[in-house]
Amino acid sequence: MRYLMTVSYDGSKFYGYQKQLELKTVQGELEQVISKIAKEDVFVSSSGRTDRGVHALNQMIHFDLPKEIKKTKLQKAINSLVDKSIYIKNIEEVEDDFHARFNVLKKEYEYIINIGEYEPLRKEYEYQYNQPLNIKQMKKALKYFKGTHNFKSFAKTNDKITNYIRTIYGVKLKEENGKIIINFIGDGFFRYQVRNMVGILIEIGQGKKQPKSIKEIILKENRTYAGITAKPQGLYLKEVFY
Amino acid sequence: MRYLMTVSYDGSKFYGYQKQLELKTVQGELEQVISKIAKEDVFVSSSGRTDRGVHALNQMIHFDLPKEIKKTKLQKAINSLVDKSIYIKNIEEVEDDFHARFNVLKKEYEYIINIGEYEPLRKEYEYQYNQPLNIKQMKKALKYFKGTHNFKSFAKTNDKITNYIRTIYGVKLKEENGKIIINFIGDGFFRYQVRNMVGILIEIGQGKKQPKSIKEIILKENRTYAGITAKPQGLYLKEVFY
Repeated sequence: MRYLMTVSYDGSKFYGYQKQLELKTVQGELEQVISKIAKEDVFVSSSGRTDRGVHALNQMIHFDLPKEIKKTKLQKAINSLVDKSIYIKNIEEVEDDFHARFNVLKKEYEYIINIGEYEPLRKEYEYQYNQPLNIKQMKKALKYFKGTHNFKSFAKTNDKITNYIRTIYGVKLKEENGKIIINFIGDGFFRYQVRNMVGILIEIGQGKKQPKSIKEIILKENRTYAGITAKPQGLYLKEVFY
Repeated sequence: MRYLMTVSYDGSKFYGYQKQLELKTVQGELEQVISKIAKEDVFVSSSGRTDRGVHALNQMIHFDLPKEIKKTKLQKAINSLVDKSIYIKNIEEVEDDFHARFNVLKKEYEYIINIGEYEPLRKEYEYQYNQPLNIKQMKKALKYFKGTHNFKSFAKTNDKITNYIRTIYGVKLKEENGKIIINFIGDGFFRYQVRNMVGILIEIGQGKKQPKSIKEIILKENRTYAGITAKPQGLYLKEVFY
């Protein structure tokens, strides 16, 4: 029996999503708890990893159990045993061939930048930039991300990815109470892609680069032409669409 | 030269405000850093302690320096050295007889209850109650707190306080996006007073007690008649008035 969970977690409390020996990770915590409930080893598969410090509001994770357990009972059991920085918002039964990663149609990420005063209570939950940024210029830049492009310029240096072509369906940016909130919807994002896209937007907001420079950087297909990598604290995996 | 700082801190990162040997506390951190800058032992005095887990948005803290340091320079120096869960929002020079605690006219506390779904990312910043409460009934109860009363029924059991008489100038309660936000303004609050007042409001919201029971509980002047102590995570020292 295959189950699909909707999971939220506080990325600041783990060494990333992916299981690592002797380090507290989201995957490690979930596998430990579900294995205990199932009384045998259970492996979980997510829609994709999140890096250390990155949060999830609706991460999607599937796993198989040898014997059926009622989904509401299972949800309660996991939530009662799992670390309180993880929460199972929902569990549903899915077809045996459903896969949390391979079946993804779209994903939405959100990034929050605090351009107001430093907030110690939000330091793990936003990028504490704490300086003004030119929002008009940042907004002008968004359209250059949209569409299907080779995003190699926004990859992690030396990452072994064979295909950098991704489609971005939508990018939105708003300012609310001194926070800039940026949303990206696309068919998928490789490691550091969102944080590097936000990095170039910040440089545009600083006046160091022009909005249309994004177009040129994309065409270069070379990481050295892009900018900084925005901090993980501001990044949220917001929604996964199947 | 006496200085008065406006300080915000994340209470979840400390063992309370008050200095304790070998434990990380807000007072301990600040004294260590300011003593380092002043090159001699400096003691700091706050408007009042906050318990472990309780946050401050605008705590007021004064201290004396043997030699004058320009306030903007001092603020920068402290912020660059202090733990990043503390932030000095402002420093001003005050008269030598100003005292952060004795000169307090009014204080405002805020308490946040999440009556919606459990949020792992907010577990240190709200009381995760995660069940509905009767807000109408809670609102009806607020008026009984207002005025000058002996609040002994809302004290910490066995706490050695000689005077439980306090004046509450205002109490407000609103609901926003599944969060109940309660604000108390008074001439002062003793230990656990706000959390115990919130505790009885929660019991009223649960239907276990009637709004007017607050009046009776106050008159009893006995802790055993009041209710639960609301968790520290939801409590914020919001403002101190001089």
